[in-house]
Amino acid sequence: MFHELDKDNYFYAMSKDNEPKLKVNLGDTVKIESHDCFTGQITSEENAFNGFAWDQINPASGPVYVNGVKPGDILKVTIEKIDIGSTGVMVTGPEMGVMGNKLKDMNVRIFDVDNDKGSVDFDGLDIPINKMIGVIGVAPPNAEINNGTPDTHGGNMDSIKVAEGATLYLPVYQEGALFGLGDVHAAMADGEISVSGLEVEAEVTVKLEKAETVKTYHPVITDKDGVYMMVSDKDLNLAVDQSVHKMIELIQPHTGLSLSEITMLMSLVGHTQINQVVDPKKTARFFVPQYILEHYDIELN
Amino acid sequence: MFHELDKDNYFYAMSKDNEPKLKVNLGDTVKIESHDCFTGQITSEENAFNGFAWDQINPASGPVYVNGVKPGDILKVTIEKIDIGSTGVMVTGPEMGVMGNKLKDMNVRIFDVDNDKGSVDFDGLDIPINKMIGVIGVAPPNAEINNGTPDTHGGNMDSIKVAEGATLYLPVYQEGALFGLGDVHAAMADGEISVSGLEVEAEVTVKLEKAETVKTYHPVITDKDGVYMMVSDKDLNLAVDQSVHKMIELIQPHTGLSLSEITMLMSLVGHTQINQVVDPKKTARFFVPQYILEHYDIELN
Repeated sequence: MFHELDKDNYFYAMSKDNEPKLKVNLGDTVKIESHDCFTGQITSEENAFNGFAWDQINPASGPVYVNGVKPGDILKVTIEKIDIGSTGVMVTGPEMGVMGNKLKDMNVRIFDVDNDKGSVDFDGLDIPINKMIGVIGVAPPNAEINNGTPDTHGGNMDSIKVAEGATLYLPVYQEGALFGLGDVHAAMADGEISVSGLEVEAEVTVKLEKAETVKTYHPVITDKDGVYMMVSDKDLNLAVDQSVHKMIELIQPHTGLSLSEITMLMSLVGHTQINQVVDPKKTARFFVPQYILEHYDIELN
Repeated sequence: MFHELDKDNYFYAMSKDNEPKLKVNLGDTVKIESHDCFTGQITSEENAFNGFAWDQINPASGPVYVNGVKPGDILKVTIEKIDIGSTGVMVTGPEMGVMGNKLKDMNVRIFDVDNDKGSVDFDGLDIPINKMIGVIGVAPPNAEINNGTPDTHGGNMDSIKVAEGATLYLPVYQEGALFGLGDVHAAMADGEISVSGLEVEAEVTVKLEKAETVKTYHPVITDKDGVYMMVSDKDLNLAVDQSVHKMIELIQPHTGLSLSEITMLMSLVGHTQINQVVDPKKTARFFVPQYILEHYDIELN
């Protein structure tokens, strides 16, 4: 069945206490409208922060209650389509992102997004669009988690791999999962070093199912290139190490390889990568290419 | 002029006190033979560590003294060719690499490298060869640095980007630079999570010149895809942040962009990446694609 959810159904923290705004069944498809990460507060480059409410950022549309999904399940989210608006906003400023210690003033820029041409006009430089979803997740197990922070429930993972055609697997902690998404970017690179991608309004179409074979305590993505394990931690050193451990836990049982052998294999073909280094927790991802999954007949679904 | 250097000219620590084994002029080409990272001590999977000398790992062939290069210059090393042997060694064990806390025994595997086919035979799985140089650098400014450790002088950066066709830029600290390389891998992925790539003997042909426009305090690579800034630190968090700062210092002067503008641009197109997370210092790299350099007419050479 097909559903639509308006962008004015949103929340700023993932929580078991959020009231569902839509109830769907397993296998249903939902077109979810989302505000940009500023909840549409920035419409001009001048005086953008006059009256700006800093507690109204990173809205996620939802929550969507998925009938038949319970704690311990894995929610399978197929990203079928991402449509984005024709302008995007970026912000830099003191204490924001990797360069925040050198930036003296708040700056806002609004760039045109040419969806027909597939590029962003960065003052005459054409940057290819790479549409992706920054905030996507479910209600966490215990206390609420602000949408700005990523963790095992998803949240602000800011991964360029959460894109059209990808499938995201999320551990479920609450009845119905209480799924939501927002913070869509027209373009962003690994790291999101300024703390801002090109922030856009969007319509995202997702199919919601229950995973059959994937067992994970952290968000996992599959796409045409392979599989990614994503782990968030305040310390990137730990996030990277854990993303390797969790990937090996995910795939080793399917391979027949010893721990020593799969460690060697991962050293040769498994890549440590970074989603972002600017959120309250940083997110590492570990990538294993598709031909490895095919060789060992590993079906993740 | 063309030179050759035999693999029995090697050292285990980069140091201003190492005696040059070859003197060349700027613009000369050198074919450098190198042992594998075990200095050829492992020839069988059984009893590999009987009598193994752990202080004889990561030999770098050299040093090569480059006439006309002095402290403050940047050495430009063009990797013209990498030829590798037909077998490669891998090791895993307790306290080694990301999985070292779970591994109980030392394990050695020797895999065939099929240079004609372009693949490694991992027990029936064909892994594409990606030849790369693990240890490459010059004598550091002060005390010697063991070849196992990367830093501003290069060393054990373990970057898959130090490959055929790439150009590496290294800060020079000593008269003649005292250049060396070794630790070549037939295959390795970002992270080098087991602490071992597929370790091979090699012949590497490099051209040694002085950089004309590149100004850097850290190793820089250029290749057909773009430019990479590499920073090593015990803490990956700091290494990543500094790789971003240093890249912006390298390219901003060529762009006419303000710090705020280039921070936005880097957030959209500049990728935080990882060389390795298993050496005494971890190495981050920040990547900017070629079309950005072309748009701003940035010539790095």
